[in-house]
Amino acid sequence: MSQMLYEGKAKKIFLTDDPSTLLVSYKDDATAFNGKKKAVLPGKGRLNNLISAKLFGILNKKGINNHFVKRLSDNEQLVKAVEIIPLEVVVRNIAAGSLSKRLGLEEGKPLKQPIIEFYFKDDELGDPLINDDHIRMMQIADDTELNLIRQAAQEVNRVLTDLFDGIGVLLVDFKLEFGKLKTNGNIVLADEISPDTCRLWDKKTHEKLDKDVFRRDIGDLPQVYEKLLERLEDVQ
Amino acid sequence: MSQMLYEGKAKKIFLTDDPSTLLVSYKDDATAFNGKKKAVLPGKGRLNNLISAKLFGILNKKGINNHFVKRLSDNEQLVKAVEIIPLEVVVRNIAAGSLSKRLGLEEGKPLKQPIIEFYFKDDELGDPLINDDHIRMMQIADDTELNLIRQAAQEVNRVLTDLFDGIGVLLVDFKLEFGKLKTNGNIVLADEISPDTCRLWDKKTHEKLDKDVFRRDIGDLPQVYEKLLERLEDVQ
Repeated sequence: MSQMLYEGKAKKIFLTDDPSTLLVSYKDDATAFNGKKKAVLPGKGRLNNLISAKLFGILNKKGINNHFVKRLSDNEQLVKAVEIIPLEVVVRNIAAGSLSKRLGLEEGKPLKQPIIEFYFKDDELGDPLINDDHIRMMQIADDTELNLIRQAAQEVNRVLTDLFDGIGVLLVDFKLEFGKLKTNGNIVLADEISPDTCRLWDKKTHEKLDKDVFRRDIGDLPQVYEKLLERLEDVQ
Repeated sequence: MSQMLYEGKAKKIFLTDDPSTLLVSYKDDATAFNGKKKAVLPGKGRLNNLISAKLFGILNKKGINNHFVKRLSDNEQLVKAVEIIPLEVVVRNIAAGSLSKRLGLEEGKPLKQPIIEFYFKDDELGDPLINDDHIRMMQIADDTELNLIRQAAQEVNRVLTDLFDGIGVLLVDFKLEFGKLKTNGNIVLADEISPDTCRLWDKKTHEKLDKDVFRRDIGDLPQVYEKLLERLEDVQ
């Protein structure tokens, strides 16, 4: 295997022979609460790799530019090399998690319009919520780039909300990351989209189908992700 | 004295014979850290009343609509009745306080452009930072109102930065509140502008001339505010 470029909490990134592509290897490690809660859950890496590959493939087909090239194996996928923009872009359709805490909203309350939030990706600072003025000041993105990111996030939300609705799942909220392509600097969707980065509830039962089962110790994560993958199987 | 409408941490608000005006009485109470730190500091009420009356009077003359009508006594001023919009509008010129903590910026670092932040005025939630999407969703203000507030905050910043510069003081940051006039619903600047709501540093020594002397136990608050009032005396 080639040289490792970076190891994160859930993935390892390796260089390939082609400087414009990278290999992502999904790990079985689960972490929550900024790394304070940890576990190794066999099968998790494979599930997130398969789910993320499937969703990125569909987004590519829908014309939403992203870093995904192809799946290589159970745990690995090939992606275009990007420089990650240090923003966690959170899109919310239903109040839950930190939004409920921040604003005192009941979990499960549908929002009239999707909400977009930007968090500064910085573990030491605890990924704080920031606003457009902070982003400008820190030179994380300029106004044009931020508009592009906001529009892409809304478009991803439309596609994924429909997609999950079709398999009886509510897309409550999710986190995206964007990056600049090493080749031409264009901004594309990157990182992963999986039950690790989305809140997904069964439409009828509101059963949680995402990492909250690990965060809150209310279920077997690999089993839950496996069921979600099965539901996704026929989606094109 | 007439009926008290509301008692806050630093002020009492009374009804007057005229439903379009209210009487504000400044208290000697000092609080910090969302009420966790408390003291009674004789003279503080008078000082904030005099300073706030002075600054609002100047802003009125500069064409920035605000609630101030006139000062009535050492501790009291008459204001137009407004319904307060539950936003703390913070304008920052130099990194300090929660901005330094949030983004890991050194205190005292000048910002290239002023930063505006909105906090949801809610003691129980700890006045959380919120963004435009949250404000829209909570129906705190619509886009037109928010633009108006943002522009007024920038204009206040220009006027006050110049004013304080003229008396050898750096306007590091400050908090504004806005309200809708009971008479016609127009949005005007309200609440108070004082060393309780501004960070003010001596331009040469960076000595703190504001409530941080109480928050951090580094000086005699009434003495510091008195000196600031003296510096303001000749400002028109």
